[in-house]
Amino acid sequence: MTGVSQLSPPTSRFRTEAGQLEFLEIARRILGSDHVVTSPAEIERRSRDTVPGAIPPVAFVFPGSADEVREVVRAADRCGVCVWPHSSGRNWGWSNSPTQEGSIVMILERMNRIIHVSEDLAYAVIEPGVSYEDLNNYLKAHNIKLWADCTGGPPKGSVLGNALDRGVGVTMHGEHFASLCGLEVVLGNGEVIRTGGYPDGKDGTRYTYKWGIGPVLEGLFSQANFGVVTQGGVWLMPEPEAHLMFGFTMEDESQIVPLMNALRRLALHGIIPDKIRITNDFAVLTLLTQWMKERLDGDSAITPTDMRKLDEKYHFGLWSFCSSVYGRKEQVRALRKIIAQELSPYGRLLFFSDRKVAFLEKALPVLMKLHRSRSRLMDWFGGRLLHLSLQMVQMLPPLYRLYQGVPTEQIVRRAYFRSKKDRPAKDVHVAQDGVGLIWFGPLVPLEGQPVFDLIDLYRRWFRESGFDCYITILMLNARTVVPLMGIIYRTEDRSECERAVALYRKLHDDSLNRGYQQFRCGRLGWPSIYRDSPALLAINSKIKEVFDPRHTISPGKYGIP
Amino acid sequence: MTGVSQLSPPTSRFRTEAGQLEFLEIARRILGSDHVVTSPAEIERRSRDTVPGAIPPVAFVFPGSADEVREVVRAADRCGVCVWPHSSGRNWGWSNSPTQEGSIVMILERMNRIIHVSEDLAYAVIEPGVSYEDLNNYLKAHNIKLWADCTGGPPKGSVLGNALDRGVGVTMHGEHFASLCGLEVVLGNGEVIRTGGYPDGKDGTRYTYKWGIGPVLEGLFSQANFGVVTQGGVWLMPEPEAHLMFGFTMEDESQIVPLMNALRRLALHGIIPDKIRITNDFAVLTLLTQWMKERLDGDSAITPTDMRKLDEKYHFGLWSFCSSVYGRKEQVRALRKIIAQELSPYGRLLFFSDRKVAFLEKALPVLMKLHRSRSRLMDWFGGRLLHLSLQMVQMLPPLYRLYQGVPTEQIVRRAYFRSKKDRPAKDVHVAQDGVGLIWFGPLVPLEGQPVFDLIDLYRRWFRESGFDCYITILMLNARTVVPLMGIIYRTEDRSECERAVALYRKLHDDSLNRGYQQFRCGRLGWPSIYRDSPALLAINSKIKEVFDPRHTISPGKYGIP
Repeated sequence: MTGVSQLSPPTSRFRTEAGQLEFLEIARRILGSDHVVTSPAEIERRSRDTVPGAIPPVAFVFPGSADEVREVVRAADRCGVCVWPHSSGRNWGWSNSPTQEGSIVMILERMNRIIHVSEDLAYAVIEPGVSYEDLNNYLKAHNIKLWADCTGGPPKGSVLGNALDRGVGVTMHGEHFASLCGLEVVLGNGEVIRTGGYPDGKDGTRYTYKWGIGPVLEGLFSQANFGVVTQGGVWLMPEPEAHLMFGFTMEDESQIVPLMNALRRLALHGIIPDKIRITNDFAVLTLLTQWMKERLDGDSAITPTDMRKLDEKYHFGLWSFCSSVYGRKEQVRALRKIIAQELSPYGRLLFFSDRKVAFLEKALPVLMKLHRSRSRLMDWFGGRLLHLSLQMVQMLPPLYRLYQGVPTEQIVRRAYFRSKKDRPAKDVHVAQDGVGLIWFGPLVPLEGQPVFDLIDLYRRWFRESGFDCYITILMLNARTVVPLMGIIYRTEDRSECERAVALYRKLHDDSLNRGYQQFRCGRLGWPSIYRDSPALLAINSKIKEVFDPRHTISPGKYGIP
Repeated sequence: MTGVSQLSPPTSRFRTEAGQLEFLEIARRILGSDHVVTSPAEIERRSRDTVPGAIPPVAFVFPGSADEVREVVRAADRCGVCVWPHSSGRNWGWSNSPTQEGSIVMILERMNRIIHVSEDLAYAVIEPGVSYEDLNNYLKAHNIKLWADCTGGPPKGSVLGNALDRGVGVTMHGEHFASLCGLEVVLGNGEVIRTGGYPDGKDGTRYTYKWGIGPVLEGLFSQANFGVVTQGGVWLMPEPEAHLMFGFTMEDESQIVPLMNALRRLALHGIIPDKIRITNDFAVLTLLTQWMKERLDGDSAITPTDMRKLDEKYHFGLWSFCSSVYGRKEQVRALRKIIAQELSPYGRLLFFSDRKVAFLEKALPVLMKLHRSRSRLMDWFGGRLLHLSLQMVQMLPPLYRLYQGVPTEQIVRRAYFRSKKDRPAKDVHVAQDGVGLIWFGPLVPLEGQPVFDLIDLYRRWFRESGFDCYITILMLNARTVVPLMGIIYRTEDRSECERAVALYRKLHDDSLNRGYQQFRCGRLGWPSIYRDSPALLAINSKIKEVFDPRHTISPGKYGIP
C-alpha cells in the first residue's frame, strides 16, 4: 500500500475559465480592484512555497471584513471556483497552498482588528489577520498586563491561523487550539455561525468557556475545510510576579531517554510547563550561523568531524532546551530548587531571571568588542563561565522575551541555513526568499526509549538522503511528543527538491505504518492521512457535504474532498 | 417569546406498537431475556426521575459490549423505535430521560471493563459502565500510583457519562470532558468510528493527545445525540508527594464579590486550582442534617431566624469552600503561604494535611462521645478551636479523600434534605428513593459583582417560590463560573412539583434572556436551548442527519431533533 498518492483529479467545475472570469469580476466589485491581485509577477512572488509542487492560484483576493468573506465565498460557490483561505500566508514548511489549478487564494491579512481585550478575564477577541506582533504591540501600547503566548515562528504569523492549524507555543497557553474560545465562521454555503450557543449581541461566556452548550463544533474548523473563521477569542496569560527561564544542554546522548522520562514525570506533576522543545545540535546550529559562513566540506550534510569543530566554536552541545516557569517569587524559588535537583543529573542547567538577562544585555556590546579583538577574557567568559558562545548569548534576550509573549524574527531565520544569501536582519519571509523547508511531525506517546529509537532511525534516513537532520522533540502535553523534523533544502537545486520530497514521503509512510499520525500536516501528506481510517474519512466527507456542499473551500485540505 | 415550550410531537414511527414488539423480540435474541426488562414494576422503579414529567420507556435493555450496542441500535433503527443510552442512569437532577412515549432506555452498566491503564502515561481506557468507585478501587487494588478525578456525586456514577455531559470534578483533571481522550462511538446509523485518526490496533497517541489529525470530532459526542460512546480514554493524575486541602468560611457577605475576583486572579496565575465551589449556608446545611430532624417552623423555606439558630449549632457560616493543592513539599509550602496571605482578608481559612486529617479521624470517636455527653470540652474543641461542629468534622475525612480521587456517598445524600425518610447510610439512589431535585446551572463570566447580582436575584425567586436556595458557585475555569442552584422538593407533593417546575422555567428563561446558556441542561430545558441561535440549531440538525438519519438515538436531547 503506498501512502502518498495523487489527489483525486479536481472536478471539471473548478476548471471553467468562464467561471473564474465571472468570479474575478464579482470579486473586484465586492473588494475593489486593489484587493484582487492577478498580475503574473505578483502571483509568482506570492505563490512561492517552501514545499515543492505548489500550484499557483489564478488570483489572490484580500477581503476586509467577515461580510466580504461571505460575499467572496458565495460568489465562488456560484461561479464554481474554489477558494483557499489563508490567515497571513506564513504557514511556512507546512504548506496549505491549493492542490488544484484555477484556485483562488484568499488572504485575510486586512482583517486585523483587535476587537476587544478583557484584562480581568484575560482574553482577546481578534480577527484572523492579527499577528503575534500586532497583539503583543497592542497589549504593550495599552498597558494591559497580559501576555499572549507566541511561537518561535514569524512575528507576522496569524494568531488565529496558527491556533486553527493546532500550532504550539511555549507557556501555559501554548496549546493554541485549546486556548481558542468562541469562533465566528463563514461556512462553505455562505451561512455564518458563531460557536457556543449564544445569541448575537449577548456574548455570555462565549470567550471564557470553550464548550458552550450542546455538541462542541469548534473542533470542526481546525485542520479542516468546512468554513472560514473570521473572528475568535484567544486566552491570554496575566503578567506574573516572577519569570525564570532555564536552559539545559546535554553532551552525553545516553541521557536523552531518562531525560524525556523525567520531563514527562515533572510535567505530569505540574512542576514544569508541558511545552518543552528538546533541540538537537544541528537545530541549535541553524540559529547561530549559516552553512556558507562556515566553509564546510562538501555540499551535503555536515560531517561528524565538522560538527565537532562547530561545537567547539559555539558550545551548543548535543541536545538542549529552554523553558520558563512563572508565578509568585516564593513559588518560582521552590520550582527552581526542584528543577535543579531533577534535571541536573542529565546535563548542564542554567537559570535566567530578569536581572541576569538585563545584565547580559548590558554586557553584550562589551562582549562583542572582546570577541572582535579575540580576547582571552571573552573565551573565559563564554567558554568557561557560561559555557556559551557569544552567538548563543546574543540569542538569550530575544528567547527570554519569547517566553513573555514577545515574538522575534531571530528564530525563524534558521530556515535560511543552507541559503546562499545572507539571512535577512528583518522582514523575514522564508517562502518569498526562496528557502526550502518541509516540516514532518509525527505524534508519539512520551515514552523515552521508543521516541529515541524513532528519532535515531529517521535521522539516519536524513543522512542517507544527504540532509542534515533538524530535530526538535516538541512536547505537546505531558503525555505526547512530536519529534518535529525539518528538511531544509535549496529550492534552486532540482535534485535537492526531489530528494527532499522523497525523504518526506518515506518518513510520512513509515510513521503511518507504525500508526503515528502527524500533529500538523501539509499539502504533501494530505492524500494519505486517512489511508487506514476509511470510516473517519467517510464521516468527514459527509460533514463536508453539510457545511460546504459544493466543495468551495480548500477542497483536499487535510485529506477532506 | 416563551422559552420552554413543548417538544415537537414525536413522529408516528416511534409509536408503532408492532415496531416495539419486533424490537423487543430482536433485543431478547441479541442480549438474552435477562437483559431486556419489561415488567411494569421494574419499569416503574427504574424510570423514577428527580425531575417531574418523566415518560416511562417500554423497556430497559442492558447490552454487554460495543457489538451488542451496535446490534441494538441497528435493530431500533430497523424497527422504528428510539433508544436512549444512559451510562449508569445516575444523572440525578439533570434528567436525560426520554421525551417520547414508546422509547427504549439502554443502560450501559454491564459494560464495565477497565481495558487498560498506563501508569507511565497516566491514563485509563474504560467502558461507559465503569464508575468512579470501580476505577478508584481498580487503581488501589493494582497499586497503581494514579488518582482518578471524581465528583461529589454518586460513587456509582459513570466516569465516561459524566465527562460526556461535561461534568466537573475537583483536581487538575476536573474538567472531565477536557480530560477525555480517544472515543469509540457507535453512530445512529450503526457504523462505528474511533476518533483521532488512528487505525484499529495501532493506538498511536489516541489516548494521549486529544485532537488527533484533521477536524476534531470528539465534541460532537458530548451533550448530543449523534452516537453512543462505547469506550474512551480518561487522563489520570499521578499521586503527588504532598496534598494540602484548605477550607474557607465567610461570615460577612460583603466580601463575596472581592473573594470571587481574588479566586479568579489566583486561578489565572496558576496558584490555586480552577475548580473551586463556593457553597452557601443552605447547601452546607444539607450536608449535615435533614429538615425533619431540625423541627423547623412551617413547611417551606427555612426562615432567617431558624437559619441563624442552625448556624449557631453547626458553624457553617454564610459562604464556604474547600480546595486542594498538590505537589512537592516545598511547592505546597510556598502555595500555602500565598493562599493564606491572599484569602485570609475575606474570611476564615483552615489547612488540612495528611497528618491533620489522620489526627481528626483518630479523635472522631472521642469527639462523638464528648458530643453525646454534651461536654463543654466538645464545645470548646468544635466551637472555639476549629470553629467546626462535630458534623462538619465528620465530613472532613471523606472530603479530603475526595480530593484524592476517592468517591463518597456522603455528599450526594444532601438531596434527601426535605425527604421524610432518613437518608440512607449507603447505596444511595436519589431517583429511586423518590427524592425531588432539579439542577439549574447558568454559565457566567467570572466577574464578582454581576455573578453576585444574579445570585441575589435568583435566590429571592427561590424564597418567593417557597424553596430554600441551594447554591454552589462552581468555577469551571479561571474565567467562568456556574452559579449552580438546586431545587430540592418533595416529589410526593403535587404543588411542590408544580412550583419546582415553574421556578426552573422562570430561571431558565431569564438566564436565556440575559444571554447565559447552561453548562449542562436536563430534559426540562432542552426545547429552548437554541431559542436565540437558530443557525446553530439548523447546523446541529443537519449533523444529526449525517450521523443518525432516522433519529434513532435520544431524539430531542439537548434540543437536537
